[in-house]
Amino acid sequence: MKEYQKRIEHIKVHSDMTVDELIREFGKCGVFGAGRVAEAVDIFYEMVSREDTTTYLGLAGALVPGGMRRVITDLIRDHLIDVLVTTGANMVHDMIEAFGASHYRGSAIVDDAELYRLQIDRIYDVFLYEKNFSMYDERFIELLDDLPSRQMSIREFLYEVGKRIDDPNSILRAAADEGVPVFCPAISDSAIGLDVWRFKLKHGPTFFVEAFADLDDFMEIVRKAKRNGAIMLGGGVPKNFILQAMIVVKRGGYDYAVQITMDRPEPGGLSGATLEEAKSWGKVSGRARAVQVIGDASIIFPLMVAAVRERLAQSKPRR
Amino acid sequence: MKEYQKRIEHIKVHSDMTVDELIREFGKCGVFGAGRVAEAVDIFYEMVSREDTTTYLGLAGALVPGGMRRVITDLIRDHLIDVLVTTGANMVHDMIEAFGASHYRGSAIVDDAELYRLQIDRIYDVFLYEKNFSMYDERFIELLDDLPSRQMSIREFLYEVGKRIDDPNSILRAAADEGVPVFCPAISDSAIGLDVWRFKLKHGPTFFVEAFADLDDFMEIVRKAKRNGAIMLGGGVPKNFILQAMIVVKRGGYDYAVQITMDRPEPGGLSGATLEEAKSWGKVSGRARAVQVIGDASIIFPLMVAAVRERLAQSKPRR
Amino acid sequence: MKEYQKRIEHIKVHSDMTVDELIREFGKCGVFGAGRVAEAVDIFYEMVSREDTTTYLGLAGALVPGGMRRVITDLIRDHLIDVLVTTGANMVHDMIEAFGASHYRGSAIVDDAELYRLQIDRIYDVFLYEKNFSMYDERFIELLDDLPSRQMSIREFLYEVGKRIDDPNSILRAAADEGVPVFCPAISDSAIGLDVWRFKLKHGPTFFVEAFADLDDFMEIVRKAKRNGAIMLGGGVPKNFILQAMIVVKRGGYDYAVQITMDRPEPGGLSGATLEEAKSWGKVSGRARAVQVIGDASIIFPLMVAAVRERLAQSKPRR
Amino acid sequence: MKEYQKRIEHIKVHSDMTVDELIREFGKCGVFGAGRVAEAVDIFYEMVSREDTTTYLGLAGALVPGGMRRVITDLIRDHLIDVLVTTGANMVHDMIEAFGASHYRGSAIVDDAELYRLQIDRIYDVFLYEKNFSMYDERFIELLDDLPSRQMSIREFLYEVGKRIDDPNSILRAAADEGVPVFCPAISDSAIGLDVWRFKLKHGPTFFVEAFADLDDFMEIVRKAKRNGAIMLGGGVPKNFILQAMIVVKRGGYDYAVQITMDRPEPGGLSGATLEEAKSWGKVSGRARAVQVIGDASIIFPLMVAAVRERLAQSKPRR
Repeated sequence: MKEYQKRIEHIKVHSDMTVDELIREFGKCGVFGAGRVAEAVDIFYEMVSREDTTTYLGLAGALVPGGMRRVITDLIRDHLIDVLVTTGANMVHDMIEAFGASHYRGSAIVDDAELYRLQIDRIYDVFLYEKNFSMYDERFIELLDDLPSRQMSIREFLYEVGKRIDDPNSILRAAADEGVPVFCPAISDSAIGLDVWRFKLKHGPTFFVEAFADLDDFMEIVRKAKRNGAIMLGGGVPKNFILQAMIVVKRGGYDYAVQITMDRPEPGGLSGATLEEAKSWGKVSGRARAVQVIGDASIIFPLMVAAVRERLAQSKPRR
Repeated sequence: MKEYQKRIEHIKVHSDMTVDELIREFGKCGVFGAGRVAEAVDIFYEMVSREDTTTYLGLAGALVPGGMRRVITDLIRDHLIDVLVTTGANMVHDMIEAFGASHYRGSAIVDDAELYRLQIDRIYDVFLYEKNFSMYDERFIELLDDLPSRQMSIREFLYEVGKRIDDPNSILRAAADEGVPVFCPAISDSAIGLDVWRFKLKHGPTFFVEAFADLDDFMEIVRKAKRNGAIMLGGGVPKNFILQAMIVVKRGGYDYAVQITMDRPEPGGLSGATLEEAKSWGKVSGRARAVQVIGDASIIFPLMVAAVRERLAQSKPRR
Repeated sequence: MKEYQKRIEHIKVHSDMTVDELIREFGKCGVFGAGRVAEAVDIFYEMVSREDTTTYLGLAGALVPGGMRRVITDLIRDHLIDVLVTTGANMVHDMIEAFGASHYRGSAIVDDAELYRLQIDRIYDVFLYEKNFSMYDERFIELLDDLPSRQMSIREFLYEVGKRIDDPNSILRAAADEGVPVFCPAISDSAIGLDVWRFKLKHGPTFFVEAFADLDDFMEIVRKAKRNGAIMLGGGVPKNFILQAMIVVKRGGYDYAVQITMDRPEPGGLSGATLEEAKSWGKVSGRARAVQVIGDASIIFPLMVAAVRERLAQSKPRR
Repeated sequence: MKEYQKRIEHIKVHSDMTVDELIREFGKCGVFGAGRVAEAVDIFYEMVSREDTTTYLGLAGALVPGGMRRVITDLIRDHLIDVLVTTGANMVHDMIEAFGASHYRGSAIVDDAELYRLQIDRIYDVFLYEKNFSMYDERFIELLDDLPSRQMSIREFLYEVGKRIDDPNSILRAAADEGVPVFCPAISDSAIGLDVWRFKLKHGPTFFVEAFADLDDFMEIVRKAKRNGAIMLGGGVPKNFILQAMIVVKRGGYDYAVQITMDRPEPGGLSGATLEEAKSWGKVSGRARAVQVIGDASIIFPLMVAAVRERLAQSKPRR
């Protein structure tokens, strides 16, 4: 076991560290969570600094209501990610803010029946006033009325929506502006779904969204890329949708893969499955640089982005 | 705090206990995980023994490859669940077995790159031979060729598939036989999606599946029911899809709700969110009987089903 | 990979199952949590049905306030465990009940500042009235006054305490009666510690408990046993204390090992470490039958005990 | 609910951020894990910048082999912590390095039976060569021979050990130098225990360590402090030992409390219990600033220390 000759250098912390300086200490240590975060930063940096690599961001969980909207928009605007795969809910909360409302700091230790009476929706310790949700419903249904009356894929549908959003900090708007395709396989499983249903009750079926059509586009992107790299925040549908493409494209799997999750592997679900397991399927290459960080993405991802941006600023930027 | 006058009776275990006798000991104890399992059994039993309650089963994770296929088929055949909301993957693995292949007992401590060379796909400690997956792909694509050339909802698509499966132990076949609708909002995010994509590459678009159309049917079921009860195995899209309907139907939320999950609430994602949180949204009624069991569904759900079946056998059965 | 030829048989559940019949279905399935519970039952049964095996029970967490006191006392009375390693807290709560008080069913969704004002101590959803805790303090300090004025090991101290408890359902009393030694390495880290401190403030140092002395006895037990088997409920000090003995006794490690835990391995702590990791140290034998069940011990352990007792009743009992 | 008027400001990340600048972005966001880390930094900073507050560090898990030794030694040297409560294992691994050996970067995906043959001990992805462990045993047993032949508390024992360690980067040596008491209630549950046992086999009982004697010193420290603040890395004995003192000292509980853990509360054990629960017992004051961060301490704690050191450098330092 010649490979295990690397001594653990103990992390040193001083009073004047940039984020990447701390991450580099994590890297000298190289073990436990700290070592994995450092590896994740190295991988993400390599992905975004190579011209030949297409970068996919998987976005599950409630990161947009939880304060990560701007981090994602800025990555899109700076072309640090090329493809977004998301849940519907994250796009709903993007639009709630785009239409002028905010999310609020609440508490997780509350009487939820009382919140219901007060018309406050809770997402762990984030509060959302129901009146703001209703405002979003109304504005979004208006927006739907302006959509082209034709058959679309989900990606095309979200592009048409994004074009019609004014807020430059909107994820959907930024993606539409920058040519970043947004995939959302479970779109009906969100307030977008509920509002399309309401819209059709009133207006009848003016547009049609085909459930399988996105696979053409997604496969084409994967196939064209010289190298593919995935950053997955949480698991869920975005993780699986990103990974499954490799089974048919037969590229041997992603060349880079990072997942940040708090789910565990033992109950067998894909969200908590290791990236090692993904290698057995050919979803992640056996030669890939891959790491799974067990942690809260609201902590880990901004940390990674700050370190990667610091490295990019110190080198010749990618584009 | 007058309500907290109930002493904890310590669990007694003897050598001659039926499953429900043990569950009743859990109920006398009433705290920690044991107390929650006992409450889950009471709720599930009340749901299935009331004529006026529509029962929804949410099926996330990898429970079908993990050995729970028959438990679910039997619940459908015995009309103990009325609606199934599932991931695509669980239906894929249902078809793999329906088409004659098996899943195998493997190990989670393996060299996944070696498994890839051996053409074995791993799902935690379940192994699937790639040749069996290919057999499924071929058979399923053949089956697709027989589907009606028209626009369908995802539910209709899965009904058409289910009707064409011979195996009586198949979940999809049982659901088609027994009139249990199967919803699968993220259907393109599975081998079903990949195979439809392959099929269309070869045959062009013969059928057309609308992404939002299922909401009509699902809302109608929820609206018509006098009482609604949800059993959610894992979280993911099935949990959210079941719960979100209440936001528009405005019934005040589910009357019964049980979730079995290993996800945690703190990172803010819906899969690990408490059922209390769902009350703030009106997804679960403030007066509902609701419990979340933190555990592996492959252990907890068969335990619950065995206890509920034992109670049903001892009372006048529901139908 | 010839070993992976075992098909997964899907679990079947009917209305008339004993606990072990369900566990045997789990065993036919053989994967995920269900498979691990079945393996844990097989191991526990083999341990208790072999005359040559010494059985250690590690007891961390709050299982005694959580309703498992009787399960453990009965295992001691029936000589199904030979050695108990515990936290101090579990013995404190054993004495609270032995002295006539109860624990109560509470709730985990409460205002803890209000509970403090009401003088209710909370252990997740278990409530304990502070007045009952004070009664225990008083009774236990009285009991201490009766202890022999000499140097003791912690094991001897707990034996002397156990002999002075009247309640036959007490774990400490049963252990004293049945010759089951009770080890509690962190004894000062509990109300026992606090009460000994109070006692000495009043009475001065009448007895003297040596912190390291237990290792003599524990090593001797491990050394004398032909085979050693450990059941560990939770992790903590009991897990480590049980396992570490093998490092010096050099028996190659435990022959049987079962751990039930909800802790995870990735942050590196011993409580969540896998039993595989223990093999690298020689704590668990490379040839051991060993399984770690990810689950709540209040659910899993009574399930295991019920199945093992059912098997014992059907075979020639051990003693 | 007037208090919930604070809008969530989305985190902004740029290419030139110090660690505390990022933490301040987390604080503007204020929710999910990011918000909790920001709150933990605020609390830790307030603790160390107030002259009247005694700071306790609880150290569970395997943080010393995992690369955090230097972080802790430096906190002791700079008098940013006043009291250390630890597991035995962390002090063992401190001595292994003090005696000249290192820990190595390994892997968690290995054949542990093979590691056993290679005489490599594994702690998740940290490797330790057994020959280095044996070197430590030998050196430590030599050191024990030099200890005073008298009765000691565990704290005194560890002080006597610390004084005899040469390495200035040693936690035990730094604590001895700086007058920081080290408490280790479960000391026999570690290689320290095993080596004392070996030593006594050879040399007979030359010194005696009293199991309960530390409580005098610890209570005195808690009682004397005007304000008390606890930072708990992991749970286990250190968490409970720190918190339990308040039950007798009756100060109403800690004024500041931060815990970093990956354990969960639902199974009822203290390690995963919320700090809210601790308020019901009076362990943490109802008016305390307290936060529990769900995360890997090897990531979260250096992040916190870097931010606190940055703030201290920008203000008038404490001492």
